[in-house]
Amino acid sequence: MAKVLSGAGLRGQVAGKTALSTVGVSGSGLTYLGYDVKDLADKCEFEEVAHLILKGHLPNQQELTSYKAKLKSLRSLPEALKEVLERIPADAHPMDVLRTGCSMLGNLEGEADFSQQQEVTDRMLALFPSIICYWYRFSHDGVRIETATDDNSIGGHFLHMLTGEKPNELHEKVMHVSLILYAEHEFNASTFTARVCASTLSDMHSCITGAIGSLRGPLHGGANEAAMDMIEKFTSADHAEAEMMGMLERKEKIMGFGHAVYADSDPRNEIIKTWSEKLAADVGDTVLYPVSVRCEEVMWREKKLFCNADFFHASAYNFMAIPTKLFTPIFVMSRLTGWAAHVMEQRSDNRIIRPSAEYTGEDLRPVPTMAERG
Amino acid sequence: MAKVLSGAGLRGQVAGKTALSTVGVSGSGLTYLGYDVKDLADKCEFEEVAHLILKGHLPNQQELTSYKAKLKSLRSLPEALKEVLERIPADAHPMDVLRTGCSMLGNLEGEADFSQQQEVTDRMLALFPSIICYWYRFSHDGVRIETATDDNSIGGHFLHMLTGEKPNELHEKVMHVSLILYAEHEFNASTFTARVCASTLSDMHSCITGAIGSLRGPLHGGANEAAMDMIEKFTSADHAEAEMMGMLERKEKIMGFGHAVYADSDPRNEIIKTWSEKLAADVGDTVLYPVSVRCEEVMWREKKLFCNADFFHASAYNFMAIPTKLFTPIFVMSRLTGWAAHVMEQRSDNRIIRPSAEYTGEDLRPVPTMAERG
Repeated sequence: MAKVLSGAGLRGQVAGKTALSTVGVSGSGLTYLGYDVKDLADKCEFEEVAHLILKGHLPNQQELTSYKAKLKSLRSLPEALKEVLERIPADAHPMDVLRTGCSMLGNLEGEADFSQQQEVTDRMLALFPSIICYWYRFSHDGVRIETATDDNSIGGHFLHMLTGEKPNELHEKVMHVSLILYAEHEFNASTFTARVCASTLSDMHSCITGAIGSLRGPLHGGANEAAMDMIEKFTSADHAEAEMMGMLERKEKIMGFGHAVYADSDPRNEIIKTWSEKLAADVGDTVLYPVSVRCEEVMWREKKLFCNADFFHASAYNFMAIPTKLFTPIFVMSRLTGWAAHVMEQRSDNRIIRPSAEYTGEDLRPVPTMAERG
Repeated sequence: MAKVLSGAGLRGQVAGKTALSTVGVSGSGLTYLGYDVKDLADKCEFEEVAHLILKGHLPNQQELTSYKAKLKSLRSLPEALKEVLERIPADAHPMDVLRTGCSMLGNLEGEADFSQQQEVTDRMLALFPSIICYWYRFSHDGVRIETATDDNSIGGHFLHMLTGEKPNELHEKVMHVSLILYAEHEFNASTFTARVCASTLSDMHSCITGAIGSLRGPLHGGANEAAMDMIEKFTSADHAEAEMMGMLERKEKIMGFGHAVYADSDPRNEIIKTWSEKLAADVGDTVLYPVSVRCEEVMWREKKLFCNADFFHASAYNFMAIPTKLFTPIFVMSRLTGWAAHVMEQRSDNRIIRPSAEYTGEDLRPVPTMAERG
């Protein structure tokens, strides 16, 4: 998540309207279409929230059953897309793989006109876990996985493809929660990228491809990966405290804390922290969770900085044996819903987004001849 | 080029600084680093202007020779990229092909850190014509072309790969002019997309991939293709006038005229118009050029709308036997220089670009139980 917004470009300037979410409005930290994210994470599956964000309302039982069946039917990768993924090396950045997979999909199953916007988005929602897992398992394990499984949820499908085993109930529940927490966050940089692209009336695949590219940036996505890289080096809570005190003294950047929009806490933290604790108990962890809790205590005590959504995601994902390099792609699997909904919203009342620049360059000057150039 | 900027989002709001260009500043219509685009188009090759935009100064003879030799040495497509291009069907949108090709290149030859920004940009500059022509010739003609040729210029290389023949001097010159005219245009929507992406500190391939996706939109790129689709239907200047009067009466959208930033004329029009006239004489055209001139006269007489850069590009490209669907990819081959320079400029003094939104949605409400949902 964005960490440096206090110095953000266009900060506080209204670039458009949205009915999709509020961030940091008093009384509730984060809402999707009026629902508190805590309420949603507590009571809903991710597919319900995706339906809410993309179709505008929470589904009733019949709609949910039908939507999940539809998404389940869309998990097969086109052959040409598999062949492309097989040509991406194992050391590629997983976000580049998703960016390329999404772009390639646009060549094979393009959005012919905007009447297809819901259909192509549902297809991406069903297919992004397949794209990332197919590439990962092929490039790392030499295995061509079957992506058309009958798993009950997007998160379960992802874990199943990744590990080769059906996930247990706890893991599937945590994936629902995680995907709900990351689904939407107003005009952050990746969403704004999607809206700028949408404002030229470009196609959905271009908008989502661009958004993936922006989320890839270390100031935006990837904080949960950075948090993991840090906490896995700590062997105990005391070790974590000693190391963090050193990092603070040396003014090193510590990822996973603070937020530009939230002032006192990130509403998503207490939710994912609870689930990380349950996972720790389930796997019998005695290091990573206590380490994470101590990091939280130290940062609050020393800097009055709170954990944001990313920090306890690191341990939670790790407890489910998800490789660290796939943390940000999970973010994409979820945030796709918010991006696509913003594209649809931009299209529904569009003005091309074209700001001005302050010119700081050379005054008008004649082109010198070749001989006159230094 | 953007046609609807009078209603643009963020219009007039300063989203950053640039030393790269001025658009519509009085005294000169369009300048790159202080040089009038007319002066540049008159005296320079495109590679000189690319050097200017990317490296900050016009090259002397030695620098230019060296830069052109370097670009020439970078024209070979990686095998994996060829294999990807061969899997993109002939009916794909050529901009989607470029978007995918650029994204795939990022997997194979990624920008490890920002010290490589000039290198990866030069590689793209050399390779984009190869990407588009390799796909086009393979998917349309079943031919696997050799892209590593010794053509003297990027424009000449493009025409050579497309037609299989070395272009004549006139065609190569027109390509220089055309690529110079399209190279840079301040904070238009695709460039702004690249800067938003760059502001998360993402990699160059992500920024350029995103920009291609935005240029694909019909409100931004593609006006020269739309102009071609119109003028090729007219059999004579009189026919053109009769048809256009009908279109105006029916208030149909006519592409290639007017501009949001330029008030009285587009400085690029008179330049490309001159070259279109020379090409018409060269090929013995008696229809398309007179038709284009009459369209210009009618639009000015009836609507006081002037031709923008795109209008006479249509006939000029057509006279060089370039398929209409490749017009916007040529725009990319050129504008890549501006996009990449803006990415570098954004990086050099970065703030993440994160505007605000005006919330227009539902007030806070509880999540209903499944039974309560309608």
